[in-house]
Amino acid sequence: MSEIISGIAASAGIAIAKAFLLENPELEIVKKTVENTDQEINRFQQAVDKAKTELAAIKDRAFAELGEDKAAIFAAHLLVLDDPELIDTVKQKIENEKANAESAMDEISSMFITMFEQMDNEYMKERAADIRDVSKRVLSHLLDVKFATPASISEEVIIIAEDLTPSDTAQLNRQFVKGFATDIGGRTSHSAIMSRSMEIPAVVGTKSITSQVENGVTVIIDGLGGKVIIDPSDDVVKEYQEKQESYARQKAEWAKLVNEATTSEDGHHAELAANIGTPADVQGVLENGGEGVGLYRTEFLYMGRDQLPTEEEQYNAYKEVLVKMGEKPVVIRTLDIGGDKELPYLDLPKEMNPFLGFRAIRLCLEEQDMFRTQLRALLRASAHGNLKIMFPMIATLDEFRSAKGILLEEKEKLKAEGTEVSDSIEIGIMVEIPSTAVMADIFAKEVDFFSIGTNDLIQYTMAADRMNEQVSYLYQPYSPAILRLVKMVIDAAHKEGKWAGMCGEMAGDPIAIPILLGLGLDEFSMSATSILPARSQIAKLSKEKIESSLDQILNMSTTAEVEAFVKENF
Amino acid sequence: MSEIISGIAASAGIAIAKAFLLENPELEIVKKTVENTDQEINRFQQAVDKAKTELAAIKDRAFAELGEDKAAIFAAHLLVLDDPELIDTVKQKIENEKANAESAMDEISSMFITMFEQMDNEYMKERAADIRDVSKRVLSHLLDVKFATPASISEEVIIIAEDLTPSDTAQLNRQFVKGFATDIGGRTSHSAIMSRSMEIPAVVGTKSITSQVENGVTVIIDGLGGKVIIDPSDDVVKEYQEKQESYARQKAEWAKLVNEATTSEDGHHAELAANIGTPADVQGVLENGGEGVGLYRTEFLYMGRDQLPTEEEQYNAYKEVLVKMGEKPVVIRTLDIGGDKELPYLDLPKEMNPFLGFRAIRLCLEEQDMFRTQLRALLRASAHGNLKIMFPMIATLDEFRSAKGILLEEKEKLKAEGTEVSDSIEIGIMVEIPSTAVMADIFAKEVDFFSIGTNDLIQYTMAADRMNEQVSYLYQPYSPAILRLVKMVIDAAHKEGKWAGMCGEMAGDPIAIPILLGLGLDEFSMSATSILPARSQIAKLSKEKIESSLDQILNMSTTAEVEAFVKENF
Repeated sequence: MSEIISGIAASAGIAIAKAFLLENPELEIVKKTVENTDQEINRFQQAVDKAKTELAAIKDRAFAELGEDKAAIFAAHLLVLDDPELIDTVKQKIENEKANAESAMDEISSMFITMFEQMDNEYMKERAADIRDVSKRVLSHLLDVKFATPASISEEVIIIAEDLTPSDTAQLNRQFVKGFATDIGGRTSHSAIMSRSMEIPAVVGTKSITSQVENGVTVIIDGLGGKVIIDPSDDVVKEYQEKQESYARQKAEWAKLVNEATTSEDGHHAELAANIGTPADVQGVLENGGEGVGLYRTEFLYMGRDQLPTEEEQYNAYKEVLVKMGEKPVVIRTLDIGGDKELPYLDLPKEMNPFLGFRAIRLCLEEQDMFRTQLRALLRASAHGNLKIMFPMIATLDEFRSAKGILLEEKEKLKAEGTEVSDSIEIGIMVEIPSTAVMADIFAKEVDFFSIGTNDLIQYTMAADRMNEQVSYLYQPYSPAILRLVKMVIDAAHKEGKWAGMCGEMAGDPIAIPILLGLGLDEFSMSATSILPARSQIAKLSKEKIESSLDQILNMSTTAEVEAFVKENF
Repeated sequence: MSEIISGIAASAGIAIAKAFLLENPELEIVKKTVENTDQEINRFQQAVDKAKTELAAIKDRAFAELGEDKAAIFAAHLLVLDDPELIDTVKQKIENEKANAESAMDEISSMFITMFEQMDNEYMKERAADIRDVSKRVLSHLLDVKFATPASISEEVIIIAEDLTPSDTAQLNRQFVKGFATDIGGRTSHSAIMSRSMEIPAVVGTKSITSQVENGVTVIIDGLGGKVIIDPSDDVVKEYQEKQESYARQKAEWAKLVNEATTSEDGHHAELAANIGTPADVQGVLENGGEGVGLYRTEFLYMGRDQLPTEEEQYNAYKEVLVKMGEKPVVIRTLDIGGDKELPYLDLPKEMNPFLGFRAIRLCLEEQDMFRTQLRALLRASAHGNLKIMFPMIATLDEFRSAKGILLEEKEKLKAEGTEVSDSIEIGIMVEIPSTAVMADIFAKEVDFFSIGTNDLIQYTMAADRMNEQVSYLYQPYSPAILRLVKMVIDAAHKEGKWAGMCGEMAGDPIAIPILLGLGLDEFSMSATSILPARSQIAKLSKEKIESSLDQILNMSTTAEVEAFVKENF
């Protein structure tokens, strides 16, 4: 009897194959007293060393197959195993309490995990996940238990797991792993992000898939509809094979658009750019026909390390992106740290509402040394490509004026030192705070461009934390309130001869795209894999037709009305 | 040598008198081992009982002199002394560790205080303050140390203290205490709120006043300018006596306006109402010439207790306010809990960003039993006065329609049961979320009125937590962005023949009042003591003159420009 399980569509596409249950055995920790603590500490250190050797190998493999930023996860894991706060504390526990290594490791790591998880901060929660992953690895050596290793898979399968850890995904062999489904996770969980970057169809957050699928049973992953079909009938398999082929045809059609301009049916041009996090992402941008980088998030340079990146490190990263993109525009956003993203070495105060707190430009205007270092690196890199600099979280003109003032100071200093700096760098801002959208006409007189950051703009406009599931129903990109603010920004830019882009998830959303095209958005910046579908969609849209419906859309009462109207009419 | 110390003006007025240092002696806790633990537990219980007797007396006095809501603080303190989690844990510590009662009490209460303080939540921090207050009281009995008691003061003084605890303020004798100054606290700290409700001039947050003033020295409290002058020269005393007299004259002038209408120089009428928290506050509203209650916060009914208030309790409270206000309008806001205000018995999840979380109407639409109980109490009370019901934190029309639907269902049920319900209850919303301001024209077709909640509206529009000092510079009521949103709301209301009020702090702010009058705000709701000054100010303003400057103001770039313009022109 076939069964259909619903989950969250994490990565598009259809996969049909036998299920492979990636189950990690329960680790049974028995607490014992040891007599020879030196010997036990030695046994513990050996397990740590074995784990390190394994991790180094996984890291190399990840680097070769998935790129630098994915490999960084394992560099972080290796750091955990060098952390005296963890390792020495375990040894002390063995020494002082005559505890066996397993129980000492388990108790100390659990303590850290609980501590990090309670911090209620996404970044620290990831650190908890790192420790859990690393701790399991050390315990498996202590207990001499073999974990299921996805690396050993040698036939076409669909992986079924409670969740996929970074170590699991790094070991997945793309040749054999056709798709996966997990019990937990959401669209932005690690496993979901990995599935998209590996272009493997995936459904996450099914809640119960591991308890409903047996090893070897045929499974269909519908990464378009967010469904998993277990033990399908032949008819259903046939139906999905057709969907699979039709999706493959669609992808082939999209692939033809790689070197095409983005033009609507009635001849209006828009620019489709990509959001990136590291220089390694540029390859994907170019392969997917990106016309620029609309948002280079510089946070990754600052994260997962124990001190600030130097000017030279930053310069190299920025230059690499600019050089690889050639003449295409690259919008680099200055540091947007704080909020959900913390830097351990900055010692920021814990805040009651980090999303409404001391972050991004607010922090940079205070921590000017750090800010000036980044600006100098950007200015020096500007000689190597088409750089545009963007400040995040601007709420007032005073803030923009201060940030621009500091930038110009550093530019003058560099020029006085004889360093080459481009004289045509555009300086713009993220519009992600309601006040800035409402005052866009005033801002437009002073900035060179706007990029609407819808993830935050929606969050603040609706006063609803986008990470909080209980209010996630208020994350409404098609709300007439959001659309009106977007219109204010675009109109304000055009009135002053400036351009307006968008770099939130909304820019790549098929429901939003027609409206944004109609509103005259100049640049759509999205994940690289969304560019070709968006180009294909825009080619079939008439801007003029949409424009004639805008008044009607902007005066609707609810998000549902807007969504239904777009689906029916465009 | 006289000295001037700056602080935060907490309560208006000038006071000149001798300093009385309210210093609490250091409690020296010496950790000892006791032999007879039963005897020690007995000694501990006796100290607890003495503290209870004292607290009961303070509570009665507070009830008689300050009203029910202030007395509730001491009911909460008494609850702490009945809490087995605290008391039994101390006893166990005495029993198990042979600890003396002082050290056991000190350690256990410190643990709870640390725990509550780390919760980074204003409500829980207040609980920490409660435990600190109660713990000191018990320890003083154990150590047989006498605390300075403000109740013993019998000459005119100015109290100088690090901070004033609820127990301190409840014991202040208004006849002798002319003013006070503290080291810590802000405009919304307990001591500041108390000073305003007792109409005693006060300056808080001076950081160092206790170390700079000696007992008996003459001190001037300038609660208008936020200054404390220590040991002033005769000339300075004379200068401040004149200021005192001039302020007294001004108050006398204001007092004449108690029964007057609020009318601008050019004959435009506005309504000045008050924000209240409990039925006891109504007296102050009437004494200060309030033309209505613009915001009755119903949260206090739900707080400081261990279960939900019954329909009957709520009905009685709402009815009392309506009856006392007679024909004057009373806007009652449905429960706005969550965020910074938690209810222990509701077991709400801890949130990363409570201000962007599951609170107010979002919670009420889920917890419908609780919501319906409140609505029934409101509907039944409506027969006794001029009730208007207001929903907080409305972000979408869907939410308003759901809330109104539930209200109408309960109304029908009550009528079917034969219960009297008014048929002219207006149903409105708080406008405190940017989306709602931006869509005010759509909302105006369905609501009966708006009340702009500027505290939250500013916080969300600027994406800056108003409780977070590091971003407090972004709390900008005069930002053109805020003023534009306020204008959208007022214009939208008037276009549909509805009224728009404001119940945030901005409504009573002398810089904001001229602009709000010019924008046509219909109702200004503020703390009762601000009503007469506002009425006096409005009487001197010309609405027409302000109107002619509005375009200019709304197109200014910064808050500073707006503020300077208002100060210069109105």
